[in-house]
Amino acid sequence: MRRGARERAALVPRLWLQHFATTSLVAERDRAVVGFLIGFLSHDRPSEAYIHFVGVAPDARRAGLGRALYEQFFALCNQAGRDKVRCVTSPQNVGSVAFHAAMGFAVEPGEVGDGPVRAKADYDGPGVHRVVFVRRT
Amino acid sequence: MRRGARERAALVPRLWLQHFATTSLVAERDRAVVGFLIGFLSHDRPSEAYIHFVGVAPDARRAGLGRALYEQFFALCNQAGRDKVRCVTSPQNVGSVAFHAAMGFAVEPGEVGDGPVRAKADYDGPGVHRVVFVRRT
Repeated sequence: MRRGARERAALVPRLWLQHFATTSLVAERDRAVVGFLIGFLSHDRPSEAYIHFVGVAPDARRAGLGRALYEQFFALCNQAGRDKVRCVTSPQNVGSVAFHAAMGFAVEPGEVGDGPVRAKADYDGPGVHRVVFVRRT
Repeated sequence: MRRGARERAALVPRLWLQHFATTSLVAERDRAVVGFLIGFLSHDRPSEAYIHFVGVAPDARRAGLGRALYEQFFALCNQAGRDKVRCVTSPQNVGSVAFHAAMGFAVEPGEVGDGPVRAKADYDGPGVHRVVFVRRT
């Protein structure tokens, strides 16, 4: 099920583009934006960074663009002295879960689900379970 | 109209509590949380800070708690060398608009609405207009 425009907008309000642009990335092809990664260096955890939201245009997928964005972000983290990256995804988003596993992220132990990948219950609010990923840069 | 739990959860995913807790504030009364302010120091704009989300329990309102949280955040900003604070609100949230006006925030010029306070169109996504506030700390 595709999320609605308003729900997507709630995930990426403009503040991210105003205050965390220098730790975010854009991928272009033929002068058009085909992907982006919004990330930040944790204010409270000086060795950590966080990937908040990633998007790749449907017709640009399966070409390694997501991997390239993540690797570019890992390099940015290393330059900033951040050796750990965290991110979360919805347990329903099996494509995202598979992508993060392929990228070498470990899953923090959770309670929800009966497969090998379990989500943390109510992580982002009542009923909003999340698979929690962590990786060394 | 009250927002649903999921929509509120989308505004404050756990990442804020993990990575921006030291620039956020909690107000307690009788050992219970009755208010909070989630703010951060802009990574990209070294003289700015941002207030992302504020909540005061219904039965704790009209007692100056919101004002006290904002003033505590302004003091935190001053200590961190941030002399400008920004925040946004929905134009439907007339209570929030009035609160920010009373707190001395200026409204950046917008296009939506016919009163003195106009929202910026599509600020946080298609159809998601926002009143944009700014204040010196």
